[in-house]
Amino acid sequence: MSGTMAEKILASAAGRSAVAPGDHVVCDIDVAMSHDLGTLGVIARLEEMGVNEVWDPSRIVCPMDHVAPSHSIDDANDKRRIREFVERQGIENFYEVGTGIAHEVLHERGHYKPGDLLVGTDSHTTSAGAFGVAGTGLGHTDMAYVYATGQNWFRVPETVKFQIGGTFGEHVTSKDLLLSIAGEHGTGVGQYRSLEFAGSAIEGLPLDGRFTLTNMSIELGAKFGFTPVDAAVTNYIDDRTDGEYDPLRADEDATYRAVHEIDADALRPKIALPHKVGNVVDVDEAAGVELDQVFIGSCTNGKFEDLKAAAEILEGETVDPDTRLIVTPASREIYGRAVREGHVDVFTDAGATTTNATCGACIGMGLGVLGDDEVCLAAMNRNFRGRMGADSSEIYLSSPATAAASAITGRITDPAEV
Amino acid sequence: MSGTMAEKILASAAGRSAVAPGDHVVCDIDVAMSHDLGTLGVIARLEEMGVNEVWDPSRIVCPMDHVAPSHSIDDANDKRRIREFVERQGIENFYEVGTGIAHEVLHERGHYKPGDLLVGTDSHTTSAGAFGVAGTGLGHTDMAYVYATGQNWFRVPETVKFQIGGTFGEHVTSKDLLLSIAGEHGTGVGQYRSLEFAGSAIEGLPLDGRFTLTNMSIELGAKFGFTPVDAAVTNYIDDRTDGEYDPLRADEDATYRAVHEIDADALRPKIALPHKVGNVVDVDEAAGVELDQVFIGSCTNGKFEDLKAAAEILEGETVDPDTRLIVTPASREIYGRAVREGHVDVFTDAGATTTNATCGACIGMGLGVLGDDEVCLAAMNRNFRGRMGADSSEIYLSSPATAAASAITGRITDPAEV
Repeated sequence: MSGTMAEKILASAAGRSAVAPGDHVVCDIDVAMSHDLGTLGVIARLEEMGVNEVWDPSRIVCPMDHVAPSHSIDDANDKRRIREFVERQGIENFYEVGTGIAHEVLHERGHYKPGDLLVGTDSHTTSAGAFGVAGTGLGHTDMAYVYATGQNWFRVPETVKFQIGGTFGEHVTSKDLLLSIAGEHGTGVGQYRSLEFAGSAIEGLPLDGRFTLTNMSIELGAKFGFTPVDAAVTNYIDDRTDGEYDPLRADEDATYRAVHEIDADALRPKIALPHKVGNVVDVDEAAGVELDQVFIGSCTNGKFEDLKAAAEILEGETVDPDTRLIVTPASREIYGRAVREGHVDVFTDAGATTTNATCGACIGMGLGVLGDDEVCLAAMNRNFRGRMGADSSEIYLSSPATAAASAITGRITDPAEV
Repeated sequence: MSGTMAEKILASAAGRSAVAPGDHVVCDIDVAMSHDLGTLGVIARLEEMGVNEVWDPSRIVCPMDHVAPSHSIDDANDKRRIREFVERQGIENFYEVGTGIAHEVLHERGHYKPGDLLVGTDSHTTSAGAFGVAGTGLGHTDMAYVYATGQNWFRVPETVKFQIGGTFGEHVTSKDLLLSIAGEHGTGVGQYRSLEFAGSAIEGLPLDGRFTLTNMSIELGAKFGFTPVDAAVTNYIDDRTDGEYDPLRADEDATYRAVHEIDADALRPKIALPHKVGNVVDVDEAAGVELDQVFIGSCTNGKFEDLKAAAEILEGETVDPDTRLIVTPASREIYGRAVREGHVDVFTDAGATTTNATCGACIGMGLGVLGDDEVCLAAMNRNFRGRMGADSSEIYLSSPATAAASAITGRITDPAEV
């Protein structure tokens, strides 16, 4: 029986030959991730449940990313509790503050392979679909159940496919594509569905660009998001993992709830206006909005290709004196590459502030929190009211290229214009 | 009439031919600095005093360094208030988050010249003595008086001289010298006195190394701290400022309360044990203390030469997995140099976390706050109880070289041993 990516991975994880949308299945989890805030919650639930031992410490990954390094005594004490927990449980896949954001660390450190089923205490766990992994977020109670048993139940989602033809124009990126979909199809287009992004434009993207699509699939409501499992993916995985795996792929004759065709050539740089990811306009329509801060970072846009795109625009330029540009790499590995390639030097010369790898400003928990009425253009994933700080602050979303161009002028600017 | 550095600068600033220790003089202030926390306090005092205009906006410098970028909405709103204040007052020497720590920014941006009298809302304003500037800290009320009038009163201090012969051995630095003085002479040796550090060992130090001595003069209780005004100083100042100046120097026949002679060759790497800067032992006596965190940063030890010394030890090495190494450059300029020279690459490869330039962990306000019972070796200025976080945490002080060596082993270690 043929299947979509989600159907094939859930069938495999449930030990069944096939599943269909609407089926309820109990699956074996390949990898479970909890970050600093999530691990704390899971520890509390495990205590309530009276569970003393996790099912398989080798399948649990705990990256300390949300507040890193600690900004408060309370947070430092929380992290002490987490270190005691992972030590007691024999969880060796513990990543200290500074290693990077969970979704990036998971693939950098070889914690999954195409075909795996991944759950994480973070909605952006869908990111892993860029590597052919079915990844999705769980709350603390569900995750505690996984930590205890290694299993969870799923309702098999329908799948919606986005077939992206053509090629992206200059300064038009997968972030612009994702925002375009959010604007055109609404942020409910993926509601409890699996999304597949395919076509020539996607195949032409580096993995970092694909990752933006699977990462932000959750912004479209999706349970999972996938891009093609091609040689770029398997080569990357092979470089970072040992052993065999069977990279599951959607069948040619799989059944989709809908297939939407999009021409990448027709896309323009996009801006999501406050306070919803779906409030999307072409950059021209938002141009001129004055900015207190520009942020380039997060699991969504703190990847190497994001920093590179920003550096190409910022080279030899200077950040507007009334605008703060904060660049936060998604991992230490990315940071190291960006340092060696000269991108961090470009940021520094331009007057930007490059921080250590962490979630930081994206979640309003450090390194760029917004005050009252402040306006920020952010190359990240969400512009919900108050996400980066004060309720009266405003977040616009864009690609890193548009963010970099706008940091130079101090107002929202088409990257083609700088 | 002959005089020490402090006497000559205070006499000049008071418009007198000479002053003597114990004299009370009213001086014209050349430069007044307030950082983010200080500026807030000064704004409040000025409002209470009914002062609407500062005396001379061109002589006021406001670097946003203590919490940078903001970790909270409250802090972001505080900085909004400061930006409104500097805009309203026409203070152009405003340095955004990410530029660096005040004491470093002041000389990098050419805000003073040898012979100047500087006051700042920060005890480490004594740092400026490395450039022949009499710098000292003021509280918010005194600083508001300076902002309003451009003047303040001083009691002329006696001066104590440290004559340092010989040369520093390998891995022995000016930080070790300063700690040695704190241990041998007590942290009261400079109490309301001016300190002068002179001799062949001091003249052989790069400016960054001298700066550690003047910076930490306040840890010896001093009103001012000075190192020699030689060609290294005047060349640096000439590169960064315009116009003439008269570099005041202590007279040969100046009168000192005491002159202490120290042989640099006899110094060993030092450690200040918790919780006082004067609890000083040779590194051997503290060796083996297990470390949760190592911090290299602050105005004291986040300078370029500090980072370079740490990188030389960390090159090709790896930070102990149970120890977090946090490196915080003192300014964006230093960070840029450290990136270009490959030092940041060394830190990254070693598994350290390099943050943006800020006070950060040194003041327990971000990027490395300590939790209960945590132990930290810090290349910074103070190990007072609770300074970096929890009251039950413990801070040991050392040079950057000793800190780097200890990060590799995870315990306090003589840098000669790695």
